[in-house]
Amino acid sequence: MAILVLSVSSVFAADHLPSWNEGPAKKAIIEFVTKVTDEKGKDYVQPADRIATFDNDGTLWTEVPTVEAEFTKVQMAKMLKENPELKKKEPYKTILSKNKTNIADLSKKDVMDIMARTHSGMTEEEFSKEVEAFFNTARHPKLDVPYTKTAYKPMLELLNYLRSHHFKIFISSGGDTSFIRVVATQVYGIPSENIIGSSFEDKVVEKNGKLEVMRTGKFDLLNDKENKPVGIQQHIGKRPIMSVGNVRNGGDVEHLQFSSEGEKLNLQLMINHDDAVREAAYSEKDGKSLNAAQEHGFEVVSMKKDWKEIYQ
Amino acid sequence: MAILVLSVSSVFAADHLPSWNEGPAKKAIIEFVTKVTDEKGKDYVQPADRIATFDNDGTLWTEVPTVEAEFTKVQMAKMLKENPELKKKEPYKTILSKNKTNIADLSKKDVMDIMARTHSGMTEEEFSKEVEAFFNTARHPKLDVPYTKTAYKPMLELLNYLRSHHFKIFISSGGDTSFIRVVATQVYGIPSENIIGSSFEDKVVEKNGKLEVMRTGKFDLLNDKENKPVGIQQHIGKRPIMSVGNVRNGGDVEHLQFSSEGEKLNLQLMINHDDAVREAAYSEKDGKSLNAAQEHGFEVVSMKKDWKEIYQ
Repeated sequence: MAILVLSVSSVFAADHLPSWNEGPAKKAIIEFVTKVTDEKGKDYVQPADRIATFDNDGTLWTEVPTVEAEFTKVQMAKMLKENPELKKKEPYKTILSKNKTNIADLSKKDVMDIMARTHSGMTEEEFSKEVEAFFNTARHPKLDVPYTKTAYKPMLELLNYLRSHHFKIFISSGGDTSFIRVVATQVYGIPSENIIGSSFEDKVVEKNGKLEVMRTGKFDLLNDKENKPVGIQQHIGKRPIMSVGNVRNGGDVEHLQFSSEGEKLNLQLMINHDDAVREAAYSEKDGKSLNAAQEHGFEVVSMKKDWKEIYQ
Repeated sequence: MAILVLSVSSVFAADHLPSWNEGPAKKAIIEFVTKVTDEKGKDYVQPADRIATFDNDGTLWTEVPTVEAEFTKVQMAKMLKENPELKKKEPYKTILSKNKTNIADLSKKDVMDIMARTHSGMTEEEFSKEVEAFFNTARHPKLDVPYTKTAYKPMLELLNYLRSHHFKIFISSGGDTSFIRVVATQVYGIPSENIIGSSFEDKVVEKNGKLEVMRTGKFDLLNDKENKPVGIQQHIGKRPIMSVGNVRNGGDVEHLQFSSEGEKLNLQLMINHDDAVREAAYSEKDGKSLNAAQEHGFEVVSMKKDWKEIYQ
């Protein structure tokens, strides 16, 4: 009788993913985690190799709008106030002539220029303070909550579920590493040293008699697309057994493919933004991410069908 | 009586550092760890911020000879066998004309050329296999043990002591990140993702239908001297509360200084190689490291006086 009770209680163990609807995605996650943590199974992976990498924007929190782009707009406004002569120069002249700035519409060169002007020329500590100030005041335009509250509830559950099974969780994002670091622990429980993002070259300077790390305006790694495996290799040195990204611009195709080609059992999730009512519906013109999902066996997660709730 | 027994047993708790002689260095370590882990004390540091960074060569294991330089010689010999035409070209012609190759005597340009030829132009996986093969066969010339047995016993005890107090331990080395990764877990218990070293730029290539990360011949960060704080900032994003390096060429001065200028209680150890009998005695012409120790308050560790034993 005691044995029976025990078995029943372990089969119907607490649902670690209550915001996920029953379906192929939830099933794939639970089967994968069960297999790689079963010490007696053929697919067992030791904790040191339970590496999971997650894209950030559109995967862990909403990218409508992209949070760092909102920060950039705020910083650009500050910068133009301090350097009014720039208002007459491009791309700022055009940006100011429009009612709404859409940074995504600008050329790569202009974006780089804006990024360098708003994200560099200060120490890492000073930059962190700018980012903190943004998060303390900015609110999501539709949800009317601080951006730190725009993380997806099903993903927060997934992170906790993986952590309880001794996975090491990293962010692999196109966003700025130092930007993400400011909130990653608070929002996701992911520590500062587990953030792999884009970066500027840094250099050491002496400031007020102390060594400080200064952000130069020169880009280092742009951690997107084919550079995501590079960032993962350099930072971790192992292929992740689990990688998660989302459909938008094909930015996570190589990220997930790199994981899928490892020798150990592995799982990839490709989040599809198909929920116009609860979040947003968008797709790719070339269908790159969903085609890659089919080709490489990534599990596609439908926000509409697979997620019971979106936000906390 | 029970209380008395308890107090006595905690005061005379197991010595975590049995290979360290009683003295100022051991005392400084124990006092520091006790203070930063005392939840009720003013110097308490939460586990997430208990970051410790260690140089590798000459700090965690012997650098007489430098292990990676020995690997480089082996790879150079292989490379010259496969490309005999190089034997007539510099710097190889000069190197081969001498009985003994001392890579440290070569110009920086020549070293870079040799490094690129022996360390790049292959995938990260292929490079790891070359390094593994080296460690499986090479032996330390004097100690006659595999290089994986040349770690300093007092330092292995220190790593364990810190880990038992929930420190996160990173290597900050001038050596090649991927080279160190091959043995860091086995030798030090430090995981792959906690290695900050020098690196070549990587790029993704498709090889046999799989994405592989290829080591280009172009140097990325040379993680030495003033670049050590840069590597730490980029990888961890926090100032270490403890940093350990050694006297040789001033390579750890900025590393330790960066830690010493943090706001939290911190400790730096500068290992001094002054034991000609048991290991080696060497110093710096300009005395940079020991001068910096005095200026910034680093604790100097004398291998001769502070260490009861050197090797396992």
